[in-house]
Amino acid sequence: MNTESLLLTDLYQFTMLQAYFARGMNETAVFEFFVRKLPEQRNFLVAAGLEQALDHLESARFAADELQWLRDCGRFRPDFVASLADWRFTGDVDALPEGTPCFADEPLLRVVAPIREAQLVETRIINLLQFQTMIAAKAVRCVLAAAGRTLVDFGLRRSHGAEAGLLSARASHLAGFTGTATVLAGQRWGIPLFGTMAHSYIEAHASESQAFENFVRSQPAGSTLLIDTYDTEQAARKLLALLPKLTAEGRQISAVRIDSGDLGEHARRVRAILDAGGQPQVRILASGNLDEYRIRDLLQAGAPIDGFGVGTRMNTSADKPYLDCAYKLQEYAGTPRRKRSEGKLTWPGRKQICRCYDATGTMAGDTLSVVGDPQEATDLLLPVMRNGRRIAPSPSLAVVRAHLRDQLARLPEQLRRLETAPPYPVTVAPALQRLAEAADRATGRQP
Amino acid sequence: MNTESLLLTDLYQFTMLQAYFARGMNETAVFEFFVRKLPEQRNFLVAAGLEQALDHLESARFAADELQWLRDCGRFRPDFVASLADWRFTGDVDALPEGTPCFADEPLLRVVAPIREAQLVETRIINLLQFQTMIAAKAVRCVLAAAGRTLVDFGLRRSHGAEAGLLSARASHLAGFTGTATVLAGQRWGIPLFGTMAHSYIEAHASESQAFENFVRSQPAGSTLLIDTYDTEQAARKLLALLPKLTAEGRQISAVRIDSGDLGEHARRVRAILDAGGQPQVRILASGNLDEYRIRDLLQAGAPIDGFGVGTRMNTSADKPYLDCAYKLQEYAGTPRRKRSEGKLTWPGRKQICRCYDATGTMAGDTLSVVGDPQEATDLLLPVMRNGRRIAPSPSLAVVRAHLRDQLARLPEQLRRLETAPPYPVTVAPALQRLAEAADRATGRQP
Repeated sequence: MNTESLLLTDLYQFTMLQAYFARGMNETAVFEFFVRKLPEQRNFLVAAGLEQALDHLESARFAADELQWLRDCGRFRPDFVASLADWRFTGDVDALPEGTPCFADEPLLRVVAPIREAQLVETRIINLLQFQTMIAAKAVRCVLAAAGRTLVDFGLRRSHGAEAGLLSARASHLAGFTGTATVLAGQRWGIPLFGTMAHSYIEAHASESQAFENFVRSQPAGSTLLIDTYDTEQAARKLLALLPKLTAEGRQISAVRIDSGDLGEHARRVRAILDAGGQPQVRILASGNLDEYRIRDLLQAGAPIDGFGVGTRMNTSADKPYLDCAYKLQEYAGTPRRKRSEGKLTWPGRKQICRCYDATGTMAGDTLSVVGDPQEATDLLLPVMRNGRRIAPSPSLAVVRAHLRDQLARLPEQLRRLETAPPYPVTVAPALQRLAEAADRATGRQP
Repeated sequence: MNTESLLLTDLYQFTMLQAYFARGMNETAVFEFFVRKLPEQRNFLVAAGLEQALDHLESARFAADELQWLRDCGRFRPDFVASLADWRFTGDVDALPEGTPCFADEPLLRVVAPIREAQLVETRIINLLQFQTMIAAKAVRCVLAAAGRTLVDFGLRRSHGAEAGLLSARASHLAGFTGTATVLAGQRWGIPLFGTMAHSYIEAHASESQAFENFVRSQPAGSTLLIDTYDTEQAARKLLALLPKLTAEGRQISAVRIDSGDLGEHARRVRAILDAGGQPQVRILASGNLDEYRIRDLLQAGAPIDGFGVGTRMNTSADKPYLDCAYKLQEYAGTPRRKRSEGKLTWPGRKQICRCYDATGTMAGDTLSVVGDPQEATDLLLPVMRNGRRIAPSPSLAVVRAHLRDQLARLPEQLRRLETAPPYPVTVAPALQRLAEAADRATGRQP
């Protein structure tokens, strides 16, 4: 499927564009993407997905067959559809760098463009930013819980479709996962790949030992063997029995994987068997229904597990599979705008986030203000696109990972815990308060 | 992105294939996809996603650059990579027709193919079948709760990426949703499209009335107006004031949409305003954080709502965003296989589901047996692919919808409720019990 199609959007984008077209309305609009409220189980989010959002803005065009379909579908006037033929995004974007911890109400991205451009991209911008930001925020909790152990994304199969699988490999690596099992993510972004074998591989052989032996012999590099198909400890002993022969051939068994049962208990027994057999260098990987809580519990109980394969619960952000987020009009034709729907009040205008640090370099609070309001702090939103083109190549994933590692070290300690912490202080600057009141007076007067 | 790439899979598929290649192992394997356990909040699932799974099996090939990448990545021997150049799926598939209600342990799809083909497609088969089956199972609950009202998928923006948005439009329509807001789903599958306007459209105008008037004038067909940007009831009165002028011009306002606040209370007040103004034909649509429970509660409280826009919670299956599902080897080289990992015991062999109906045509219980075991009941798994080609064109979505409607009418009444019902009876036939015991004896003997 063409995931970059401009038809991958809500119908109302086109009905609104048609109304703007009919009236010749195309003044500059300012939209911002932000999360209204953090999920209870998240002390912070991690900005992610900007790279794909910018790709979309740079490349989105209407194909001839799409224009034909719009013409034929009975909802749109021919002159309006004709006006879409040369549609492209020519606006400016400022954004939080990927890998930046962020909080409720803070814009992750600001679009400044003629309204027919800024509006049409709404759906896909939200679709791209919310997903990776949500996954990075979940994955970073696993990273914090794993305290330096290897973490591998195993979740493609239960991800919500192809793009979710691919982008969750990216977002989790960005958040600190060592690698992924998803081959396409390795090809595309150079993310380190990890893989072992399935139970079916063992079952296809007449004996488990034969399956192990064939596998190790067939791989140029060191192998990881799955040992829980029948009896985990028995399998560890079979492996020990095979090792002298395989080692003599120059083959290497790097690790074993345990995927069922009491992972901590099996790991302890298998570790003892391997150590007693003189194989302390064979690592133990665990997988199966893992998330940050189970990782923490296993490690707190002293399980000798060197790495974790984390899938479904991370790739679907299972305890909170969506963010309460929005892409909202904040200014049109030079006038700040504000939605006043019940429970959905927004802060108008072009906003900036200023982050303060204490003397130790720890984050001490953010201020949400308007662009141009001087603050004694670091501005977080940076220019990334002007006139529809990136102003610089996007940073590599390695740079983004390093940026997040640095930021994590500056997070107040209680935010790095899995337990819900008191909210990080985000205050609204007086200048923004005044702007909001002015916007209310303006719309309050409207007939 | 190329969602059909064969690199969109787990690395272990390739390491296993390399091991099979090295030993010349490529006997016939039988894999089945099934759900181990229903989520607590689902009384039944709805088989969906077969169409996309068959598309993948028919079209999957390695591209030259993918083979080059596999050759260069350092994990695979050149002769193994060369063997992938003409890889294609040549096997047989039997499956539950899309739109069939199904239960734990029941195979939704059976693949019979040389193991190097049946194994490689595992990840994407699971990825495609679990997602649509999960979404259809969630969406059908909204359909049951809505009791005939219009239901529209509004969830693309918070879906997990592009494919999730597109396929949830399909799965929810299959399950009985009237339509979707996702334009690409309308173009691709002819799913009816619905769309209104965003709050930003209202806010971009100096006045709400002007925004309404411009919108209605610009649309060739009847319009739906969003009335909760500032004051919902006041907006309904503004609309009434505009109607005489617009009607005189031949324009039509079909509906209003309420997206915030107490939806039931606003709907009652707006209905009263519209009726008092002589506009009983203007329909009321509601949206905003809806799911089957909120729809039921609104309707039980008598809210005069004619249609619901349902997004995030349906498109992410928010209360249970994954299914405990697997694609397992059940037979290799003519011998039944069974995984015995703790808590993950599976039923071996090629299975068939036989569904019994009582005298009124209501489903009375399923029997899980082995292919060829004669049962006095309807076989549910049907042949859909032979030698890698579909044996018939897939049924249209209209046919699938009608099939599900028929099946829903035959579901025991308590399974159609939102509350958790006692499990529908699925019994294991003696023939399958015997096969499982034989498989255990066989693997119990292995060294």
